[in-house]
Amino acid sequence: MKTSDMQVRTNDRYEFVTITEEVKSAVKEIGIEDGFCIISSTHTTAAITVNEDYDRDVPRDLAAACETLIGSLDVTFHHAEGNSDSHLLTSLFGQSQHLLVRNGELDLGRWQGIFLAEFDGPRGRTVRVSVGEA
Amino acid sequence: MKTSDMQVRTNDRYEFVTITEEVKSAVKEIGIEDGFCIISSTHTTAAITVNEDYDRDVPRDLAAACETLIGSLDVTFHHAEGNSDSHLLTSLFGQSQHLLVRNGELDLGRWQGIFLAEFDGPRGRTVRVSVGEA
Amino acid sequence: MKTSDMQVRTNDRYEFVTITEEVKSAVKEIGIEDGFCIISSTHTTAAITVNEDYDRDVPRDLAAACETLIGSLDVTFHHAEGNSDSHLLTSLFGQSQHLLVRNGELDLGRWQGIFLAEFDGPRGRTVRVSVGEA
Repeated sequence: MKTSDMQVRTNDRYEFVTITEEVKSAVKEIGIEDGFCIISSTHTTAAITVNEDYDRDVPRDLAAACETLIGSLDVTFHHAEGNSDSHLLTSLFGQSQHLLVRNGELDLGRWQGIFLAEFDGPRGRTVRVSVGEA
Repeated sequence: MKTSDMQVRTNDRYEFVTITEEVKSAVKEIGIEDGFCIISSTHTTAAITVNEDYDRDVPRDLAAACETLIGSLDVTFHHAEGNSDSHLLTSLFGQSQHLLVRNGELDLGRWQGIFLAEFDGPRGRTVRVSVGEA
Repeated sequence: MKTSDMQVRTNDRYEFVTITEEVKSAVKEIGIEDGFCIISSTHTTAAITVNEDYDRDVPRDLAAACETLIGSLDVTFHHAEGNSDSHLLTSLFGQSQHLLVRNGELDLGRWQGIFLAEFDGPRGRTVRVSVGEA
């Protein structure tokens, strides 16, 4: 596996930040022709997800839906940091995503892009991009 | 990685369509003895998930639960296509699933099967099955 | 791929059981220096997730949130076993998680750990840990 870390700055508590171009560049630089790519969050309150990266209303709607979903849960959390909602959303969206690499490029569907899903921002986050030959 | 695409036809807006047998066949045809299999949706409003593929009421209940979950969210979406619910569910269920391949066959637990999770049907969908040696 | 199965005992219907140390040990014993690790549940009513494994209130809050989320869904399920909620949560959290292996050790972020997410306990569960060189 060849690995490259990137830093992402977030601006809101819940925010879906596109990292599609950055991940594509990292994969090209790593330079493996065929295999698979693991894009992972090194955190427990930020996830990685694949979704539409064309209309900017899609990531905005995803963030709004998360806020509404959490707001609708009538639950008392005990974790002293007060961000159990962020931990929950991270596990629901997933800590990492895995895509194919074909001919040296990330294999994305026509509308697919990659997002860092921030659930406890604003913060600086690390995204780890690893490519393996297979 | 060796890759094979399959086409799936869906009939409802929310629908969990079994693709277990088709994926098993694709893996056998690809012919790698030991490694891993990535089953991915090339879309942003349809996911791939692993769940019980025995009692047909399980996928029906999953679709009903998704509809209820979305119906319970008091949120105003802005994406002009009007299918932000489909994008949300796709990210929650996941764009791809990854299984082991052992002795040339997909390694599934006793009750496990694979579903295309349609969240914006009816449509024709592409499922990509890739197997890597490892 | 080299694979090792472990058994986990759960005590509640919804419960997030840490398996971080067990998975770390399994990876060390498997003895591959660089590659990737697939941690999978062989079941359809228990998931694997990555989240904070430090403050014990985090997994407790996750279980409480799941119970509240399901309780808020006004849906009639038809699956005769009466555990469609468990199937739903398994697909939302995910049947498997994938991490990197670097220098023979599992590559976890500072606060990250691995949990078996039980959604239909108490039961005995099988977690499959597989490591591939890449």
